[in-house]
Amino acid sequence: MNSDPGGYPVPPPSGTGGGTTTVSRGEFDALFDSVRTWGRWAAADRGAWNRVTAAHVGRAAALVRTGTVVPLGRAWDTLAGPDNAKPALHYMSDLGDVEEPEPAAYKDFLGADYHAKAVSHLDALSHIAYRGQLYDGRVARQAIGAGGARFGSVAALGPLVARGVLLDLPAVLGADWLEPGRAVRRRDVLAAEEALDVAVGEGDAVLLRTGRFRRRRDTGPWDTGAASAGWHVDAVPLLAERGVALIGSDGDNDVRPSPVEGLHSPVHTLAITAMGVPLLDNLDLEALATACAGAGRHAFMLVVAPLNVPGGTGSPVNPVAVL
Amino acid sequence: MNSDPGGYPVPPPSGTGGGTTTVSRGEFDALFDSVRTWGRWAAADRGAWNRVTAAHVGRAAALVRTGTVVPLGRAWDTLAGPDNAKPALHYMSDLGDVEEPEPAAYKDFLGADYHAKAVSHLDALSHIAYRGQLYDGRVARQAIGAGGARFGSVAALGPLVARGVLLDLPAVLGADWLEPGRAVRRRDVLAAEEALDVAVGEGDAVLLRTGRFRRRRDTGPWDTGAASAGWHVDAVPLLAERGVALIGSDGDNDVRPSPVEGLHSPVHTLAITAMGVPLLDNLDLEALATACAGAGRHAFMLVVAPLNVPGGTGSPVNPVAVL
Amino acid sequence: MNSDPGGYPVPPPSGTGGGTTTVSRGEFDALFDSVRTWGRWAAADRGAWNRVTAAHVGRAAALVRTGTVVPLGRAWDTLAGPDNAKPALHYMSDLGDVEEPEPAAYKDFLGADYHAKAVSHLDALSHIAYRGQLYDGRVARQAIGAGGARFGSVAALGPLVARGVLLDLPAVLGADWLEPGRAVRRRDVLAAEEALDVAVGEGDAVLLRTGRFRRRRDTGPWDTGAASAGWHVDAVPLLAERGVALIGSDGDNDVRPSPVEGLHSPVHTLAITAMGVPLLDNLDLEALATACAGAGRHAFMLVVAPLNVPGGTGSPVNPVAVL
Amino acid sequence: MNSDPGGYPVPPPSGTGGGTTTVSRGEFDALFDSVRTWGRWAAADRGAWNRVTAAHVGRAAALVRTGTVVPLGRAWDTLAGPDNAKPALHYMSDLGDVEEPEPAAYKDFLGADYHAKAVSHLDALSHIAYRGQLYDGRVARQAIGAGGARFGSVAALGPLVARGVLLDLPAVLGADWLEPGRAVRRRDVLAAEEALDVAVGEGDAVLLRTGRFRRRRDTGPWDTGAASAGWHVDAVPLLAERGVALIGSDGDNDVRPSPVEGLHSPVHTLAITAMGVPLLDNLDLEALATACAGAGRHAFMLVVAPLNVPGGTGSPVNPVAVL
Repeated sequence: MNSDPGGYPVPPPSGTGGGTTTVSRGEFDALFDSVRTWGRWAAADRGAWNRVTAAHVGRAAALVRTGTVVPLGRAWDTLAGPDNAKPALHYMSDLGDVEEPEPAAYKDFLGADYHAKAVSHLDALSHIAYRGQLYDGRVARQAIGAGGARFGSVAALGPLVARGVLLDLPAVLGADWLEPGRAVRRRDVLAAEEALDVAVGEGDAVLLRTGRFRRRRDTGPWDTGAASAGWHVDAVPLLAERGVALIGSDGDNDVRPSPVEGLHSPVHTLAITAMGVPLLDNLDLEALATACAGAGRHAFMLVVAPLNVPGGTGSPVNPVAVL
Repeated sequence: MNSDPGGYPVPPPSGTGGGTTTVSRGEFDALFDSVRTWGRWAAADRGAWNRVTAAHVGRAAALVRTGTVVPLGRAWDTLAGPDNAKPALHYMSDLGDVEEPEPAAYKDFLGADYHAKAVSHLDALSHIAYRGQLYDGRVARQAIGAGGARFGSVAALGPLVARGVLLDLPAVLGADWLEPGRAVRRRDVLAAEEALDVAVGEGDAVLLRTGRFRRRRDTGPWDTGAASAGWHVDAVPLLAERGVALIGSDGDNDVRPSPVEGLHSPVHTLAITAMGVPLLDNLDLEALATACAGAGRHAFMLVVAPLNVPGGTGSPVNPVAVL
Repeated sequence: MNSDPGGYPVPPPSGTGGGTTTVSRGEFDALFDSVRTWGRWAAADRGAWNRVTAAHVGRAAALVRTGTVVPLGRAWDTLAGPDNAKPALHYMSDLGDVEEPEPAAYKDFLGADYHAKAVSHLDALSHIAYRGQLYDGRVARQAIGAGGARFGSVAALGPLVARGVLLDLPAVLGADWLEPGRAVRRRDVLAAEEALDVAVGEGDAVLLRTGRFRRRRDTGPWDTGAASAGWHVDAVPLLAERGVALIGSDGDNDVRPSPVEGLHSPVHTLAITAMGVPLLDNLDLEALATACAGAGRHAFMLVVAPLNVPGGTGSPVNPVAVL
Repeated sequence: MNSDPGGYPVPPPSGTGGGTTTVSRGEFDALFDSVRTWGRWAAADRGAWNRVTAAHVGRAAALVRTGTVVPLGRAWDTLAGPDNAKPALHYMSDLGDVEEPEPAAYKDFLGADYHAKAVSHLDALSHIAYRGQLYDGRVARQAIGAGGARFGSVAALGPLVARGVLLDLPAVLGADWLEPGRAVRRRDVLAAEEALDVAVGEGDAVLLRTGRFRRRRDTGPWDTGAASAGWHVDAVPLLAERGVALIGSDGDNDVRPSPVEGLHSPVHTLAITAMGVPLLDNLDLEALATACAGAGRHAFMLVVAPLNVPGGTGSPVNPVAVL
């Protein structure tokens, strides 16, 4: 794999960016094979969540000290925009005048085609197939139909209680945010661990802050499908070695544009399809960054509670960090 | 208030039922005033969740011993039926053939008018108004419109991490379930606390198991709007005295038919509108009952993570108990 | 084919019914081949609508005499019930308080999974495949995906202006309605033509009234999937000979239970897949029956204007008869 | 009212534009009163459609000569963009693998919050209130709630069969389209009538082509809420004198920006609220323009068949012109 330095300084260019690093499809496929965990777990639908043992849950709960609760779900976004092509739906179905009072009931309808750039959501193992196969080698077209996924559904996954680790890259780099296109590489992960005095380990949920929502608040929304900061594929083997259970970000995890030829979401492919590691996309990590900085630690208890949707390929979520 | 013994043995009749207990509107209004906490908290949108201090969160986390994780959300129910008048929606929006591969992406749309009898959901404080007023005395018609709730929204509420207590009434009574119409009264709560060796306290989330989903599995669905087991209003003052933060059930919390004249959901009214206590409706408590029985304790860490919907009157949820 | 007399007197039994007529799969397949029009039209997506020439449109318009306009779409049904497993959605999205006044705007959201028993709708040629093939022999799995239909979509079909003919069977038989399960056979069509002094011809839209909605109003809804009056397959060759362009009914056109072994919707299969004839399901024909009886004629101008949905397999519609 | 020449040459500026014409609120209110028809019809929900008598329907049908059928509904637009803030929904609910075969059924879900700039739709009389009142003086807040409209619903309106008249302004002016912001005034209507040899009359549906979709195809979508060609309020008294039943356009009828101080949609207000004239917004009139030019006439039979939605404030439609 090309080990050129630098990120992907797509518009606006990052001042520090280098050249374009390109990963060939052959290099990617070798990488895919090197991190693959197919056949490892009997409960294959849960993939790497099998690593989160009862003991791990106990250790995660033991991290709670100040009792600070931080939600990570961004506000339900019903407004179309450059990073929201499928705005979420929210309609009032009763304003106290439909169901008979007393009491008067106020009700609403919620809807979302959530797998995009705007809704905080969990990707289950049925979300991504590569070369026709889902995680564990299942044939995608046999496993998923109009009625949903028969393998790798979010209902099979269930909730996660684990240790969470925040890699706050802008804090490490002394910046407000990473510029769109900036790739987070193996060396960035190692530098962050050192700077933040935290080590990603077995069964952990690793959350990457790129500062997307800080930037969005300051400069307005942009087309994150065209350019966003995120993991480079060369960081993934390190996460695989560490045995992570979950990977998340305030973007959609993949740096965009993709550094891999002919592959739009290589980190999705490695994590979900090769490693059985679900992803959390579009988290709002601003409050968590502040809380971690204030507490002087970047590890915490994390609870992810996806809706129990049989056949679902994921779920909108509001993960909760407890410090 | 009428203190006649017995429940509401609507079809099918419970063998042990007594006569019909009727609470007059005047009695109810006195009860409403007696449990009202309006004006108590600066963060009024969060009502009784203000009781869940950081110290309470810490104590809740300290309850984790075996690391057993139990989700309480029932399966997303897209099938219309006597207890599902507004079936939830689940459609596949991509089967690997819409977005360009590679990789192939599988995506879905979820939707729900969730405030009914089928979806596990949280009621925020904007859900119920009595005599035109929401919790804290806010005028409902001024506070809520087609754009959602400006007071008492689920986004203002945020997530809850608290001690949960399961009152497994069928276990206490040696039954598989409570018959539809069976009211759970003050004396039932006291008996359950004693039998289960647990005491509901300040900031707790109290969850009532009636065995609804055990009954549904064994005998099929029925019209729970017409008859369901649930809290009687006479149990509410006890819960108020104890200072609970959250009340939940596998039904919709109110015993049905309602024992209060002219009021369809009196427990909703007392909890949400008078006390500022959000409700959890339609939980699946079967696995939790088994887990608690197995562990020999009925208190645990509970995490409720509603979707972050500005203006929302509640949210579908999948609460997580950690033992 | 079995030519036993009588209908399918499923509950409640029709007084005049005979035994159960069963059509074997081999008989059905022979019938399918006998009415098949594959390869006949260059604009294959439009199937039998190719028969509706400009001259036919002109003749249809010339049928307008009294200027009576009769809509055939039943009311949008948001209430779940035995014949409405997928209730339509209707939510107010603005009550004058979302968009800035003046003026105040009132807006709503409409949604429907319309291919069922409750919404008046048009079936386009992509709706039904038999033995893996759509109309004109197209391979269904190649032609239709999560993004919709690339062959036989409702957008390719467009609107229809044609002569409509109402076969008011209850009027012919001196009944208020046909009992659920009553099959309408070749001889019934011929008898209706004679009694009503009308002949179904080339390019016509033939509408069968069974009196479903009269019965529903008088006796309440029932599970029409289990038992409903509708066309028997033995009436289809006659309609094929006549060269009809469109077939409709106040039910879903197929008599239920199906008289064909192993096939749940044989009339759908013959009409749509073999003959390229779209269907209109769940029309409300009560007002049209009254209007036709009053006017003393059962032929009229019919306009069907489906929504222009690229890739759609049909559309909710409100067809209009003009007498 | 200011009678300055010229339109509203918002970006990009029209070469011929003059200054900005501003109508004061007082002038608007006088105009509102002058065209008001409140109290005129017993069937007030149908407003000006009461003008479409059976005789008018007959004359409309008599206009059919060539049998050419032209649909006016633009393609269901599921893609967010500058003129599509609320993209329509289209999901496949069955791909032959949900309902049991044979036959295999392909089904879909359609949804739309259609009152915006992208979906061809009809505005019923409940869509717009001015100074708190709907058409006929009904108090909006009493007439419309979360359950829909009790006055002026699209179900009360029903379908329309009438004479349609196309005012093809770009053709009259020798342009491909009217630039965004160009107002169509009284003198433009008179000039179009003369140039096209057609006169708008009692009970007619008048359709204004601005060439929006020709421009969109050639130059891409733009924010039509900020700038679009449409009727100026000074054209409305002429349409009122002529006794039109329906007004439509390929835009949303109102020229934007609005020429009336403090009123975002003055033509909506005059037509719907004062005159009881429903509107058709966002029609695709390109094919009709070609058909009319080819036929050498701009009057035709028009059929508008809204979905039968009780309480609905309008409906997506695919109106049909028959020449």
